[in-house]
Amino acid sequence: MKRIGVVTSGGDAPGMNAVIRAIVRRAIPMEMKVIGFENGYSGLIADENRPLNLRSVSGIINFGGTFLGSRRCPEFKTEEGLKKALVNLKKHEITDLIVIGGDGSLNGALDLSRFDSINVYGVPCSIDNDVYGTDETVGFDTAVNTALWAIDRIRDTATSHRRVFVVEVMGRKRGFLALSVGLAAGSEKILVPEVKVDIEEVLELLENNRKKGKKSNIIVAAEGVGDLRMFTQKIHRKTGYDVRLSVLGYIQRGGSPTARSRILANLFGSEVVRMVEFENKNRVVGLLNGKVTSTGLEEACEKKKPLDLDLLRLTEQLAT
Amino acid sequence: MKRIGVVTSGGDAPGMNAVIRAIVRRAIPMEMKVIGFENGYSGLIADENRPLNLRSVSGIINFGGTFLGSRRCPEFKTEEGLKKALVNLKKHEITDLIVIGGDGSLNGALDLSRFDSINVYGVPCSIDNDVYGTDETVGFDTAVNTALWAIDRIRDTATSHRRVFVVEVMGRKRGFLALSVGLAAGSEKILVPEVKVDIEEVLELLENNRKKGKKSNIIVAAEGVGDLRMFTQKIHRKTGYDVRLSVLGYIQRGGSPTARSRILANLFGSEVVRMVEFENKNRVVGLLNGKVTSTGLEEACEKKKPLDLDLLRLTEQLAT
Amino acid sequence: MKRIGVVTSGGDAPGMNAVIRAIVRRAIPMEMKVIGFENGYSGLIADENRPLNLRSVSGIINFGGTFLGSRRCPEFKTEEGLKKALVNLKKHEITDLIVIGGDGSLNGALDLSRFDSINVYGVPCSIDNDVYGTDETVGFDTAVNTALWAIDRIRDTATSHRRVFVVEVMGRKRGFLALSVGLAAGSEKILVPEVKVDIEEVLELLENNRKKGKKSNIIVAAEGVGDLRMFTQKIHRKTGYDVRLSVLGYIQRGGSPTARSRILANLFGSEVVRMVEFENKNRVVGLLNGKVTSTGLEEACEKKKPLDLDLLRLTEQLAT
Amino acid sequence: MKRIGVVTSGGDAPGMNAVIRAIVRRAIPMEMKVIGFENGYSGLIADENRPLNLRSVSGIINFGGTFLGSRRCPEFKTEEGLKKALVNLKKHEITDLIVIGGDGSLNGALDLSRFDSINVYGVPCSIDNDVYGTDETVGFDTAVNTALWAIDRIRDTATSHRRVFVVEVMGRKRGFLALSVGLAAGSEKILVPEVKVDIEEVLELLENNRKKGKKSNIIVAAEGVGDLRMFTQKIHRKTGYDVRLSVLGYIQRGGSPTARSRILANLFGSEVVRMVEFENKNRVVGLLNGKVTSTGLEEACEKKKPLDLDLLRLTEQLAT
Repeated sequence: MKRIGVVTSGGDAPGMNAVIRAIVRRAIPMEMKVIGFENGYSGLIADENRPLNLRSVSGIINFGGTFLGSRRCPEFKTEEGLKKALVNLKKHEITDLIVIGGDGSLNGALDLSRFDSINVYGVPCSIDNDVYGTDETVGFDTAVNTALWAIDRIRDTATSHRRVFVVEVMGRKRGFLALSVGLAAGSEKILVPEVKVDIEEVLELLENNRKKGKKSNIIVAAEGVGDLRMFTQKIHRKTGYDVRLSVLGYIQRGGSPTARSRILANLFGSEVVRMVEFENKNRVVGLLNGKVTSTGLEEACEKKKPLDLDLLRLTEQLAT
Repeated sequence: MKRIGVVTSGGDAPGMNAVIRAIVRRAIPMEMKVIGFENGYSGLIADENRPLNLRSVSGIINFGGTFLGSRRCPEFKTEEGLKKALVNLKKHEITDLIVIGGDGSLNGALDLSRFDSINVYGVPCSIDNDVYGTDETVGFDTAVNTALWAIDRIRDTATSHRRVFVVEVMGRKRGFLALSVGLAAGSEKILVPEVKVDIEEVLELLENNRKKGKKSNIIVAAEGVGDLRMFTQKIHRKTGYDVRLSVLGYIQRGGSPTARSRILANLFGSEVVRMVEFENKNRVVGLLNGKVTSTGLEEACEKKKPLDLDLLRLTEQLAT
Repeated sequence: MKRIGVVTSGGDAPGMNAVIRAIVRRAIPMEMKVIGFENGYSGLIADENRPLNLRSVSGIINFGGTFLGSRRCPEFKTEEGLKKALVNLKKHEITDLIVIGGDGSLNGALDLSRFDSINVYGVPCSIDNDVYGTDETVGFDTAVNTALWAIDRIRDTATSHRRVFVVEVMGRKRGFLALSVGLAAGSEKILVPEVKVDIEEVLELLENNRKKGKKSNIIVAAEGVGDLRMFTQKIHRKTGYDVRLSVLGYIQRGGSPTARSRILANLFGSEVVRMVEFENKNRVVGLLNGKVTSTGLEEACEKKKPLDLDLLRLTEQLAT
Repeated sequence: MKRIGVVTSGGDAPGMNAVIRAIVRRAIPMEMKVIGFENGYSGLIADENRPLNLRSVSGIINFGGTFLGSRRCPEFKTEEGLKKALVNLKKHEITDLIVIGGDGSLNGALDLSRFDSINVYGVPCSIDNDVYGTDETVGFDTAVNTALWAIDRIRDTATSHRRVFVVEVMGRKRGFLALSVGLAAGSEKILVPEVKVDIEEVLELLENNRKKGKKSNIIVAAEGVGDLRMFTQKIHRKTGYDVRLSVLGYIQRGGSPTARSRILANLFGSEVVRMVEFENKNRVVGLLNGKVTSTGLEEACEKKKPLDLDLLRLTEQLAT
């Protein structure tokens, strides 16, 4: 009989609870057992866990965060940490471990999979969307909409005061979140780590927009581009414009997942149980070209998902 | 020189304004002119229009509805109506007409395209998602999230009172909206016009759920399945449960578009201008398997988009 | 030692959970015990209850509905029902019972208080705001904002299609909800049970608004005014306008409480524990002229709270 | 004939548009003229203005920001600036000037009123709620709910990761916003400029909460308390807890006003026109103990509104 361990790891993302629910609700009717490990990889090491049944996951599909908890766990990057985890997994006779999380968490899953004593599966759940092998991670759509909601509000003030706003969004080292948010917000410019920031170009754009009679300018910037405080001050100094920096921060992580994040959670949770059933192991679930599929863990961890730079240009063209 | 006419037709959908903005912002820098016809096809017939420039579409990307207005227009289904429209289009030297709307509106576009004196293009914009040739229409994601928001609230009352709720969502004759909403809401059952409603099966499900200790039941039903008042009463009579019907109604049409609806609007608006540029005419823009593409108007109007019935089953499996 | 029983009764309202939390968190440090009765008065009769401690109410301040459950209970209106309840209250040595609910629930509390074997206290919690002795009930502000959110969306469609919308809001036999919603929404007209509906006046208003160039008309109507389907049809027949009825329904009950509903819940919950402490019994907490106070249960049940009709006039003046 | 000038000044607040609408809609039917000055006091000095009619304020009740614009204007604090403004007001034969804004803007109004050549009136509109003479300013309730919405999301992450979050809200030099937000959010602690911050007390509270088994701690801090970056680091250093600072920033200014902010805007706008009618001049409208009233401009500018410190204690008691 299959005994599935489930762990949510790394930064929390909206939809993690929905993924757990989907896994539990699909696995148990197939006569599998499900054990939830708490507080991320540190719960694997410290053996904090609880059995999950059909009712354990009632009424959680619409909740942000993860009821299993998550935590950073540097120890899991050591061989010693990994071995402690394996001992605990063995103790509970876990045959298959499902890791729900982002890029960093999947790297941990890959490390674990090398020991070959357990089947490992990844479900990409992250507001950063920085996982190779899937066009979209669970939680990404929610974070995009949260940031968008915030920028719609900031636009009110920007227009009233004829200001330039630089809005920092999350995304770790990548620009996926900034790109989607900026395109949806009708922002005047998007700054991403994948493209070198050219302040002269930004200054020229602002000057052109002023001439065109634009009342406000929103520059959406990924946290990965570097120090935006300096950048903002520089724009102010060089133009005299009233420029403000707004760092959206942690509000982007939480909240009830959007329909899309929940549906993706349902599809991924369901698919990963099917993969467990057929021992299609050491793989990460994903959505590619509109279809649910999977990618090898190693490939997912090593390859870098490209950012569609055409959309940066489109955003600027549409903000003309 | 290209002179583009733009018309929003049929029921309004969130993102229509974003589509108009994208068309205007892409077309004008390419030296095209854009004229907006007001109040749907009736504005084509009555010659109500205004020229659109880059600033006409400022600050509208986040607004629901359509600033050009829309209206039902039975006259447009007559040859006389069509000819009046063609006279006006000719008067304004319109070379290319872009129709933004749902299934019915595209049928009107097809009728017009048969006269061959004008190039016609469709942009699928509808909360019903019932257009062949695209996996998603502009506005659909917003309507799904609005309905979801409503059902999350209804769930509060359902759980507090241990009630069964039948929630009617829109969707005209199709079940796309009901399916996405029901799957995302974690509903216990989804009723769509594509599948015969079996009340005995529903009664059995409710009885099983009671035994399992479920505190509430949400049945999401498409308006297209027929009289839900009778259905609700029947469930009450046969089970004695406290059953309520909630018709979500017009709140599903309005509201600020979600990120996804806006991004789709940007992509579709941009693509349709490219199609105008290359005279890739009498076609409807669409998103298929994650890629922007287009389909012939006639094919889009005549073929019926399939509903993924597997997702109905998945919804029930996950609500176990 | 005081042993407090807590019951949520009648229709659920956002903020009920916050009230329970405030009671528990205030009472326990004062060495009182708190027992929660489940499913409204029927839980008093059937003796369904659980002890509540400080952690029982963690993380619920932001949840709609009531975690204790609620239910209609016709039996509680009989002497037999009341006596069963008293037996159970005695069994658990309840000295003080706090009833959280609206007008109907407080009438039940009054019935119980006549037996004189227990101290009874009321906390007005209702989306209808129809309780004498308080300017505002817990949950009212949330319901007003929910309905407002819905009408803002409906306005999008109304303006796009130049329609008249009749929007039915809740409120039982009173017009408090309709009045606040209509005034906040900038509606053209409000219909309340307290004022006879004059359809001729409505028709004249619509005609005047058409002449003024108004693009849409929103008529907010309380459910208590009677059959709005007929009313809507009559307007259509007499004017030829495109008129639609939208019944907001149950979405008005649920949802996370607004700041104001939560703050009121905190104040009322805290005050009612103080009243228990000083045996200021058989009274209902309230907010009058900005101050927390209380009113005798009998007075609260028998007197009728007046509706500020000046605000009806103001709404129309502002919609000119 | 009365000729009213209207100006929105200082930081924008949700409901400013609703106030302008109410003024215009009440004044014009009374045969008064209304001229809107743009971009705050700088528009008085630079003579940027436009006449407002009944249709100028259509469809704006639900919009954040101010369509008249606002701007900081240091020049208005000089005698020269004031005189330029008076010249322009005279040129347009303005008899009565209505200033819509917060504490700083009302001080400007007071300066202007000393010249005695024009009647001045204030409408308190600010997210900070720091105006003496009114229990609530227009926009305050909206900002409270926006911050609350943000904190509800942050709580998801805090609970998932068992973190301490310090959330900085606006409020300038006062703690009104922090107090209402913290009380409504169920926060563990509120820091306001009116009470000296005692870090030892905070550390002790966190230690006690850990012992009680609390999963997360939210400390809501007003921007006026000083450098929160240092404070947050200190907590981390002394406790080893995972502590994060989140600065909510500009999202608190914008957004569609809540029902309460809109209703207050309607009442204040209506009342100020009545004051103009009866030349009840050099006063600020307000809401005191639930009733619309007014206070002398000088008194409103010179006195300091007290903060209800009991509510700080209540917040902590309820978070036990």
